[in-house]
Amino acid sequence: MPTLFHRLLGEALGTALLLAVVIGSGIMGEQLAGGNVAVALLANTLATVFGLWVLIELFGPLCGAHFNPAVSAVMAWRGELSRTHLLPYVLAQLLGAMLGAWLAHTMFDLPVLQWSAKLRTGTGQWVAEAVATAGLLLVILRAPTARVAPLVAAYIGAAYWFTASTSFANPAAAFGRMFSDTFAGIAPVSVPGFVAAQCVGAALGVGLHRLLGPQAAR
Amino acid sequence: MPTLFHRLLGEALGTALLLAVVIGSGIMGEQLAGGNVAVALLANTLATVFGLWVLIELFGPLCGAHFNPAVSAVMAWRGELSRTHLLPYVLAQLLGAMLGAWLAHTMFDLPVLQWSAKLRTGTGQWVAEAVATAGLLLVILRAPTARVAPLVAAYIGAAYWFTASTSFANPAAAFGRMFSDTFAGIAPVSVPGFVAAQCVGAALGVGLHRLLGPQAAR
Amino acid sequence: MPTLFHRLLGEALGTALLLAVVIGSGIMGEQLAGGNVAVALLANTLATVFGLWVLIELFGPLCGAHFNPAVSAVMAWRGELSRTHLLPYVLAQLLGAMLGAWLAHTMFDLPVLQWSAKLRTGTGQWVAEAVATAGLLLVILRAPTARVAPLVAAYIGAAYWFTASTSFANPAAAFGRMFSDTFAGIAPVSVPGFVAAQCVGAALGVGLHRLLGPQAAR
Amino acid sequence: MPTLFHRLLGEALGTALLLAVVIGSGIMGEQLAGGNVAVALLANTLATVFGLWVLIELFGPLCGAHFNPAVSAVMAWRGELSRTHLLPYVLAQLLGAMLGAWLAHTMFDLPVLQWSAKLRTGTGQWVAEAVATAGLLLVILRAPTARVAPLVAAYIGAAYWFTASTSFANPAAAFGRMFSDTFAGIAPVSVPGFVAAQCVGAALGVGLHRLLGPQAAR
Repeated sequence: MPTLFHRLLGEALGTALLLAVVIGSGIMGEQLAGGNVAVALLANTLATVFGLWVLIELFGPLCGAHFNPAVSAVMAWRGELSRTHLLPYVLAQLLGAMLGAWLAHTMFDLPVLQWSAKLRTGTGQWVAEAVATAGLLLVILRAPTARVAPLVAAYIGAAYWFTASTSFANPAAAFGRMFSDTFAGIAPVSVPGFVAAQCVGAALGVGLHRLLGPQAAR
Repeated sequence: MPTLFHRLLGEALGTALLLAVVIGSGIMGEQLAGGNVAVALLANTLATVFGLWVLIELFGPLCGAHFNPAVSAVMAWRGELSRTHLLPYVLAQLLGAMLGAWLAHTMFDLPVLQWSAKLRTGTGQWVAEAVATAGLLLVILRAPTARVAPLVAAYIGAAYWFTASTSFANPAAAFGRMFSDTFAGIAPVSVPGFVAAQCVGAALGVGLHRLLGPQAAR
Repeated sequence: MPTLFHRLLGEALGTALLLAVVIGSGIMGEQLAGGNVAVALLANTLATVFGLWVLIELFGPLCGAHFNPAVSAVMAWRGELSRTHLLPYVLAQLLGAMLGAWLAHTMFDLPVLQWSAKLRTGTGQWVAEAVATAGLLLVILRAPTARVAPLVAAYIGAAYWFTASTSFANPAAAFGRMFSDTFAGIAPVSVPGFVAAQCVGAALGVGLHRLLGPQAAR
Repeated sequence: MPTLFHRLLGEALGTALLLAVVIGSGIMGEQLAGGNVAVALLANTLATVFGLWVLIELFGPLCGAHFNPAVSAVMAWRGELSRTHLLPYVLAQLLGAMLGAWLAHTMFDLPVLQWSAKLRTGTGQWVAEAVATAGLLLVILRAPTARVAPLVAAYIGAAYWFTASTSFANPAAAFGRMFSDTFAGIAPVSVPGFVAAQCVGAALGVGLHRLLGPQAAR
């Protein structure tokens, strides 16, 4: 069994790479798309879907591959993560997210330390984050185990487009993207609203899962 | 076994999320694509393929994941859905489709209540809907069971492009998209023609399936 | 076991749908892409990959899902298709290809009967067709059986872009696309060169397969 | 068991086809994209992901499907490739890479013999190559065996966008792309820096793999 140290290392490294993928592909997309934001977001989407699938497959057996405090909290609440491990998991995710943003900046020769100025706020955005996070929890809790990694990745790919917020659905992602004044960034002042909406969404997802009841045996 | 209540809830929620994906990603695509409709439809396609795959995997074991009155009708005719459950299934799908359109509008800060003004009519469109629905039924009836979810999603992804109607192939989708004056909308006056063509297509699909006969044993 | 009639019906219907996907998505892509041919070809690629995967999964157990005279000829030469069935297979494929072009035109409200005026000729194009067909045969002959359907589809998706001819790799496809003066068309005068190059490529693919020898046992 | 000759033939042919895919799809993308580099890179990405997946599935059982001296070196160091076979493997890969570039030029009617003039240099690019190669090694060393082929392909697809260098991650790819003054090319003077960064990255990937420790049993 992996030790707690190895699992936290996995969460931190995996979250760092996830943020590097999200932020890095956003930078590349915006630089190359010549002002067509849809093309930039298509590239951002493909890179995220591919990268997230890979990261969950790689780190799932080590640490669960949550990369997401909302997911870890639900797992702790369900008893699938020791409650004493929840705080270290969340700290590892937040640290990894920040380092991932800085890694992306380093690769693209941008100033490492940045704060995003991109406001993301309003009822529509918050409803979108709640829907996005509720859907993510439904996928994690109900998808067939053997396919949960590609299904989570595919879900996020869809949610980049069908939610008005491009689906952060992850407090650590919101935290890390705060450090990047690029395509994927979010202004620090907008982060609390996003995180609150994500928490509501996670609770909604768990509630819907329970309301829907057990799957039929296959 | 899931109760009828849980199954209807699954059909309604799944259809709502499907319509939210289709309509929401259409809105996002059109807003970002700067007038390049092909780029908007590419985004719409990717989001739909990813979202539909996830929804069928999630809701298939609960309720069959029809999300489509034409599919439910064929399943009832084949005895795979109790005939007394057909009407409740269809009502749940229609209700979900309408709510999904409204959810998309809420996320994108658009007026919730809308009627589409986009006319979709003519022989080509109707032939396209019949072909699209016939193909969908062929996939559902003939695909290897273990891969039916991704194959249905992939089929719809192809049909967004090869049928002139962008392949609604689903009376509930036509009904729900009527409530959205956005990229994916369809004017109410065009809905009956689409639904009739879809019914013809479903019958054609079942007929082709029977004509082709059984698969070779593998 | 399916009868020869059912198998020929499968080849004809599958080839018709394949050509309808290729030609129809080309028409839609070109109409919507506003002159950006790369965007049109991206749409054409995605639709073809999705559609081809679905068609091989659906028709493979019935008839082998060749949809391609070069593939049927190799299968007959290897003894996997009765030699007396080769000619009927090829005729069913050619008939299906022509009908598929006409189906696409019907859906898009274009004149049904057309001849392509798009010349596709020259050494580069012929080398490309030979490479494309050799690669297709390598995939069919060497891919793990359980994944041959998605791998053939993925291969064609790559070959749309890395071969200068956009990879017809199929005499029936060349034949059917001759009937369509649209994005995917090929002038009749260019067809013999393409088919000859495809035959050379098929032989090259078989030769490379034999030269590479057996796979290691897994 | 395949002989060394067959395995070297597999590495050479597979690397040639990989470079033909990368360079050919870059040429096609740039020719058709009308100056939108993001669209060209999207096409390049899709073709590479599809092609790489196919090639690893096809050649993996024959020769390991490294197509990459850095991967072969790690495999030799781990004892999974005989150390006496390392040099022949690398030579076969380099030869194949050069021939693949020339094959792409032949298909696109370009002068066969070229040298790229595209400088790719600077700290960001080198960090990107190190990150890209470290990630590739992590995928190869930690991915579930049954899914390593699609996961490597998906990883490269993400890395085309999230690394500033578009992720060569392969000394043979850098060598082969040196011979092509097209979209995917790299000036010879920039190759040593890329290869050095890739070697550092490969060592980093192996180190991270060991630091993360064994996976949990599943």
